[in-house]
Amino acid sequence: MKKAIGIFDSGVGGLTVYKAIRAAFPEEDLIYFGDTARVPYGPKSHNTIIEYSIQNSRFLLQQGIKTLIVACNTSSAVAIPALQQLTDIPIIGVIDPGAEQAARNTINKRIGIIGTEGTVRSGAYTTAIQKLIPDALVFSEACPLFVSLVEEGWQDHAIAYSIAEEYLSPLKKLDIDTLVLGCTHYPLLRKVIQDVMGSSVTLVDSADAITAYLACLIPADSDGVSGKDSFFVSDNEDKFARISQQILTDQFGTLSRVRLFESWFQD
Amino acid sequence: MKKAIGIFDSGVGGLTVYKAIRAAFPEEDLIYFGDTARVPYGPKSHNTIIEYSIQNSRFLLQQGIKTLIVACNTSSAVAIPALQQLTDIPIIGVIDPGAEQAARNTINKRIGIIGTEGTVRSGAYTTAIQKLIPDALVFSEACPLFVSLVEEGWQDHAIAYSIAEEYLSPLKKLDIDTLVLGCTHYPLLRKVIQDVMGSSVTLVDSADAITAYLACLIPADSDGVSGKDSFFVSDNEDKFARISQQILTDQFGTLSRVRLFESWFQD
Repeated sequence: MKKAIGIFDSGVGGLTVYKAIRAAFPEEDLIYFGDTARVPYGPKSHNTIIEYSIQNSRFLLQQGIKTLIVACNTSSAVAIPALQQLTDIPIIGVIDPGAEQAARNTINKRIGIIGTEGTVRSGAYTTAIQKLIPDALVFSEACPLFVSLVEEGWQDHAIAYSIAEEYLSPLKKLDIDTLVLGCTHYPLLRKVIQDVMGSSVTLVDSADAITAYLACLIPADSDGVSGKDSFFVSDNEDKFARISQQILTDQFGTLSRVRLFESWFQD
Repeated sequence: MKKAIGIFDSGVGGLTVYKAIRAAFPEEDLIYFGDTARVPYGPKSHNTIIEYSIQNSRFLLQQGIKTLIVACNTSSAVAIPALQQLTDIPIIGVIDPGAEQAARNTINKRIGIIGTEGTVRSGAYTTAIQKLIPDALVFSEACPLFVSLVEEGWQDHAIAYSIAEEYLSPLKKLDIDTLVLGCTHYPLLRKVIQDVMGSSVTLVDSADAITAYLACLIPADSDGVSGKDSFFVSDNEDKFARISQQILTDQFGTLSRVRLFESWFQD
């Protein structure tokens, strides 16, 4: 029996990663989990991000996956070591592929990172880039309203430009030649971000970078059978179906809601 | 032993309700729970809002409270009947007090409601107002970005005005004389909302209305001993402490984090 590749994200943003993987590996079975009940992860504490990432990974591991993709930048930035305790299968986050692509692209060794509060606070991109280019200068900016803008469907709105100007103007002054879109929602704001930063800055999207990583792990599969697509979310199946059809455009597969059994206890 | 009044909200917004209750009932013990790990509730499905509201209420009931205040508009709009199954103590949401104050204020019987997607979708304010004034015309608008704006601390920013213009311009054309701030975050945007709507529109804040409700339930307590304040959150104690000190300004009481035991299961 074919084992699937498992992918999780805090919500719909990881579908940009899913789409790139589906295009590169048409015969692989893919299982996607979006934690739409508890999105966004960016403002949560590291402990909570780790807890939720473990729960999401456990669910995917129960489905018998062969590789785990952490499509959420915030989870990738803080939870990978904890997830590696759960399983021996390969776990790939979006930080290293994004950092590598940024390092390959930069000429002046001045790189910008935009992401959620959790991702920026972790310093994960800076660490990963400076492993590759020790004297690189890395400048980070948290852009928490970007996620809400995308979820509101205002990515082409005049307000999106005002908010992008507000967040990006400090980075514009720093002479960066490369900017990492360090949140899976941000590629949906690519046009606005590119317009504000100007055409001399190259935008890096981890979704493009991650498929090269996967190709090293997964032997070419050539049974000629198209891979199956299974989607799971923790809330709002209808909204997820609507947004995912906009992002994925073609065939969709099955979609189910997964619920949590939870009860409070005190630390 | 004195029993406390329990108050829950999806996050910090309910502190506006807490503050009004503390001012009106200086000798009552108050226990506040903010579900800061899972904020915001507005975009979640009704089922998930009900599940989370039940968990929050169970936690407060375990502390031995005598009255439960649902400070979150979204929870008040959809979860009160489910919460009434849990306990015989009085449960007070913010919808009825807000609706009553709006009904008392309006002269032309044209009332606007702004709130989260969940609150607006529920139609709870419309139902509550039309019980009091059957021929009232009630117009609702969801303003999802307002919560993110407040959490970003941008309530006085030029962008707050742009976003408020965008959301409120349909309501401005409808000749309303009363506008209910149907989300506990919105009083923190009161100045922007009042400026955009103009001075002829009266803004209604449920936090002011709820204390009159409570006064009917709670006998005057005059042992002369100041009430205790206990705060619990599900994440980010530090951020909560910072924001709550801005909102409450004076003494604070104790603050603890409460964690969830959770595991996924499929529907």
